[in-house]
Amino acid sequence: MIVTAAADATALEHLLGSDQVLRDPESLERYRHDDAEWADSTAPLAVVLARCTDDVVTAVRWAAAAGLRVVPRGAGTGLSGGANAMADSIVVSLERMNRVLEVNTDERYAVTEPGVINDALRAAVAEHGLWYPPDPASSAISTIGGNVATNAGGICCVKYGVTRDYVLGLTVVLADGSVVELGRRTAKGVAGYDLTALMVGSEGTLGIVVSVTVKLLPLAGRDERAVIGYFPSLTAAGDAVAAISRAGIIPAALEIVDRTCLRAVDDWMHLGLPADVDTLLLARVDERGAAGDEIAGHVADVFTEAGGTDVERATDPEDIDRLFLARRLAYPALERLGPVLTEDICVPRSAVPEMLRRIQVTADAQDVTIANIAHAGDGNLHPLIIAPEGDDAAKARAKTAFDQIVADCLALGGTVTGEHGVGLLKLPGLRVELGDRVLAMHRSVKHALDPAGTLNPGKAF
Amino acid sequence: MIVTAAADATALEHLLGSDQVLRDPESLERYRHDDAEWADSTAPLAVVLARCTDDVVTAVRWAAAAGLRVVPRGAGTGLSGGANAMADSIVVSLERMNRVLEVNTDERYAVTEPGVINDALRAAVAEHGLWYPPDPASSAISTIGGNVATNAGGICCVKYGVTRDYVLGLTVVLADGSVVELGRRTAKGVAGYDLTALMVGSEGTLGIVVSVTVKLLPLAGRDERAVIGYFPSLTAAGDAVAAISRAGIIPAALEIVDRTCLRAVDDWMHLGLPADVDTLLLARVDERGAAGDEIAGHVADVFTEAGGTDVERATDPEDIDRLFLARRLAYPALERLGPVLTEDICVPRSAVPEMLRRIQVTADAQDVTIANIAHAGDGNLHPLIIAPEGDDAAKARAKTAFDQIVADCLALGGTVTGEHGVGLLKLPGLRVELGDRVLAMHRSVKHALDPAGTLNPGKAF
Repeated sequence: MIVTAAADATALEHLLGSDQVLRDPESLERYRHDDAEWADSTAPLAVVLARCTDDVVTAVRWAAAAGLRVVPRGAGTGLSGGANAMADSIVVSLERMNRVLEVNTDERYAVTEPGVINDALRAAVAEHGLWYPPDPASSAISTIGGNVATNAGGICCVKYGVTRDYVLGLTVVLADGSVVELGRRTAKGVAGYDLTALMVGSEGTLGIVVSVTVKLLPLAGRDERAVIGYFPSLTAAGDAVAAISRAGIIPAALEIVDRTCLRAVDDWMHLGLPADVDTLLLARVDERGAAGDEIAGHVADVFTEAGGTDVERATDPEDIDRLFLARRLAYPALERLGPVLTEDICVPRSAVPEMLRRIQVTADAQDVTIANIAHAGDGNLHPLIIAPEGDDAAKARAKTAFDQIVADCLALGGTVTGEHGVGLLKLPGLRVELGDRVLAMHRSVKHALDPAGTLNPGKAF
Repeated sequence: MIVTAAADATALEHLLGSDQVLRDPESLERYRHDDAEWADSTAPLAVVLARCTDDVVTAVRWAAAAGLRVVPRGAGTGLSGGANAMADSIVVSLERMNRVLEVNTDERYAVTEPGVINDALRAAVAEHGLWYPPDPASSAISTIGGNVATNAGGICCVKYGVTRDYVLGLTVVLADGSVVELGRRTAKGVAGYDLTALMVGSEGTLGIVVSVTVKLLPLAGRDERAVIGYFPSLTAAGDAVAAISRAGIIPAALEIVDRTCLRAVDDWMHLGLPADVDTLLLARVDERGAAGDEIAGHVADVFTEAGGTDVERATDPEDIDRLFLARRLAYPALERLGPVLTEDICVPRSAVPEMLRRIQVTADAQDVTIANIAHAGDGNLHPLIIAPEGDDAAKARAKTAFDQIVADCLALGGTVTGEHGVGLLKLPGLRVELGDRVLAMHRSVKHALDPAGTLNPGKAF
């Protein structure tokens, strides 16, 4: 039956029009995987470029009837393989559903299609004096639908929370092709199970999100400030992070960039960073007025007491951007050095120094380069494991390092994914983290909502 | 089989000890229903006073084997009937599981048993300089377990969110008696489905919560201020609420108390409220320093522009308490007038004036007294319908008014429960709100996690 169905993807073209169904080998290869090239993938049988909810319904119904699997996809910027295609699958891309449908200033919410780029949504609501806080590093290229699928985080979530905290409601196409409205547009509500929260972060395994209602905050009312400092070691910076937390300060961002990242950025952009710098710690403080200045001063003091040097503060937007430039450029600078295997672990804040120490031990033991960018303020670390192109032995050692980092994270009371999602890459670690009974709950819930296993099977748990 | 099991509740006594199992008629009557006396209830066959997780496991396993239902219960302060006992049920009370197990200042979380009273948790963490924000009006008498079961809100949630926003993890006894740890203790995490959020607000239908890990905020760093004003009508106050929202102000509280409440309080406590006052609007502003003073001034200006009189500001804690006294006493003052049927609806903020107008129309049409307390800042209204004791015709009219208010709320884009939960009282409205397909999703999820229907069946959806 599957083979027949595959041969009959022409039927899908008839249903949707040939401009909305890609079947040429080049396109199938392009939609084969997301940005997790280290994870398994198989070219899909077809790619549907949905323009509206009905298109998604048509594709899901057709695939379900044909016994095929459906892999939903946003911009394909995922780092865990959640959008990787598999055998006997079609990819349903939401990238053309890219309209912001409503911005409601009185109630402070927006309704958006899933294919809207995060930055585009932020720009659209800013025109109305509103702010959508979740700011994944991929905000210029990732879609809201993908952010919802992975419950994406970002730099400001240490203070402002992650995607799930802003999703009020969803329109979802279920595995049987029915369309449901979940959640609400009111500020509060406890009507029934929180199926909205269940969908957020479920990586397309329970339904395909075709519209998202997000809560917004007023754009005004914050005074941005940056505080940065250089530290003699990763663990010294980690100690400063723990001290910030102990002091009861909740900064609007608290980021670590390590020596490897700084050197990669400086080699690329010639920023003139001091040659002897080791670790950069960057904070944002956004409380209004003198109170905010006082908090920024407190952060600077904590940095200095923890051994920070060249501690600098900025309030001018351009100066803030300049101070954060190394952070912004770190990931692209590293990608120039070779394929990057991006880790995403989250440990208790107080375990950040020890986790950073263990990562260094692993790097030494496996003889691989591991750079570190971290949302340190919430314990969310991104060790970036770099393997030289074409060096299979190095790649194998990188994979061993990846597994060791996950094991260390769990030993320190952490979780295997802070904000990138489980996808395929984190499945082994997740199984250890959750245990058999909770995994069985996942299977029960999946089976309850998708008994035939049509939607992105084998992902997320 | 059920009759045999009922006769054999002695077996439960043997398993748990007779001091932990109540079977006398008086106790069974006392645990028959929560504070929703208008909802149906049947005396349970036994009441288990659990002291630990194992007790809950024993009770659930015994009940499941005997084909009985299990109704979990905290302090019994629920207002929707979620803890009402039913035929062939035992009640499992968590009130004796009342220890705060851990307060972690570095990571800012606490682990608590479910029977801890909300205020007791707040006091316990305050000793460590930490703050648990959710503050339901019942905070002096309701338990954290009950707050989790209903996803309780409160006065400060307009700015700080509801219970679900603070639950990081849960230990839960499932319907088969197995015990699972859900969620995490890290600041972030997206590992697997958000079964924690699914459990919060599920009213004991998916599992019995035996421990709760809550996120905390620093206690310091806020400067409390109150702003109050009197308005010539409910709708004028509603207009002021909408104007606050439009101005981009997010107060730490924004409460309406109407004339009926004010008179009931004054008749009881002789506060010397002006005789001609109609509606009281109360705000809290807690930003630090001069910026906070400025926002409070802005709130006062909006109040005045919207027709508010006697606008008053306070920064001294005693003055703030005095200004909020009428709010705190409103509910007990009304209860002196007769049985109160407490509504709990949430409408879009901009619909608050129209909803208040419709409530008045309903009160007139049904010839019943309806007082209004409202968390107006998030559109969460509590019309309080008062029926004189022993007047069955008035009680019937009150019920008609209740249904009309729910219908009006849905017509205005609202939800049938903002923070009290569905329980039994809101089932008809909920079914309209969710629709058949979403209700079917609820049934699927319930069946997946509790196939025999052991846990609190017939509640929540």
